Amino acid sequence: MAEKLEVGERNRVRRLPERGRYERDEVYAILDSSFLCHVGFVENGQPFVIPTNYARRGDEVLLHGSAASRLMKFMAAGNAVCITVTQVDGLVLARSAFHHSINYRSAVVFGRGLEITDPAEKTEALRVLSENICPGRWDDVRMPSSQELKATLVVRVAIESASAKVRTGPPKDDEEDYALGMWAGVLPLATAAGEPVRDPRLAEGIAVPEYVKKYRAGK
Amino acid sequence: MAEKLEVGERNRVRRLPERGRYERDEVYAILDSSFLCHVGFVENGQPFVIPTNYARRGDEVLLHGSAASRLMKFMAAGNAVCITVTQVDGLVLARSAFHHSINYRSAVVFGRGLEITDPAEKTEALRVLSENICPGRWDDVRMPSSQELKATLVVRVAIESASAKVRTGPPKDDEEDYALGMWAGVLPLATAAGEPVRDPRLAEGIAVPEYVKKYRAGK
Repeated sequence: MAEKLEVGERNRVRRLPERGRYERDEVYAILDSSFLCHVGFVENGQPFVIPTNYARRGDEVLLHGSAASRLMKFMAAGNAVCITVTQVDGLVLARSAFHHSINYRSAVVFGRGLEITDPAEKTEALRVLSENICPGRWDDVRMPSSQELKATLVVRVAIESASAKVRTGPPKDDEEDYALGMWAGVLPLATAAGEPVRDPRLAEGIAVPEYVKKYRAGK
Repeated sequence: MAEKLEVGERNRVRRLPERGRYERDEVYAILDSSFLCHVGFVENGQPFVIPTNYARRGDEVLLHGSAASRLMKFMAAGNAVCITVTQVDGLVLARSAFHHSINYRSAVVFGRGLEITDPAEKTEALRVLSENICPGRWDDVRMPSSQELKATLVVRVAIESASAKVRTGPPKDDEEDYALGMWAGVLPLATAAGEPVRDPRLAEGIAVPEYVKKYRAGK
């Protein structure tokens, strides 16, 4: 597909257009940096926003959940969704209250769900979702049974339209404010993994795997 | 107001209802733990989800942005929004692929925007928003000018309805899977602040303030 996403009414960044990004690689890099998205959908005119797990694969976003989930059933039925992923990279502490900001990367995707029903395709999509959360884990665990597959809805959303918005760098103050005496700069923020916590029912002598020790969120 | 939120069609947690929370204190504690929400709104039937800064004050959510922002204008016009806040607390690594999960806290709020127009009320709302992101900063910075106030839209959303969903604790595996030999447990995740980065234009000899050094995201 084209390297640049088409810009239309739905995905055009209106506010601070200089922060808008339409390069497919740049939008996809933001999608690939996380595993948690917020899915927006409309029911009887009412907007709903639900957090859920996802993974990008090619030009689509994969999502999964319980076959009883309202969100999953809604997506499986082919309804329009908006999928948003946001990474906060830091607080931008300017000299004026007005110029305070946040350094962030966000990606917004528009599309419609399509259920994946074939068990082999479904299992493969679940593998991609698992590897996106915790690379290496899939090979260690018991595979889904056919009953578990039936209890799971897996949906692909083809990326019909998308854009990203990015802010980086130091504060941008009004010229006359640079003479003021307060501290200014950026306080970086990032997701960090803590010490792994063993399941209380884990048998003695089972070591923490390397892929858990090396885990880095935000990739 | 009542300590328990009313449960209706809009805010009832359907999937895994045992994870649903309707205690006002519990929902508000999640709202107070963050400064980034995802706002869902509908335009011509199309859902949009936009990340933005917020703060809770009493039984309302405060939001602000440029007077030119589509989201802000939409909210100021009194349209229905869904405001969702999610904190990821850890990866739940179970013995089966199926029982993998995420420890999280999420709050979903439904309401309608109402613009705050009075300059003193607007400045006070901006103070609350600022203190929610970086406590202590407000007293250090140049206050908004009347022109800056005019360029800013501030909106309050009365919390008409809300709920939270929470997962904590170790994996819950099928009984027969506990005999399997792989590691299982939780990998905790949290937002962490890095070393403050000075503005390249900051004058020599201005020290990093205590409130920046002590900053803790996720409160």
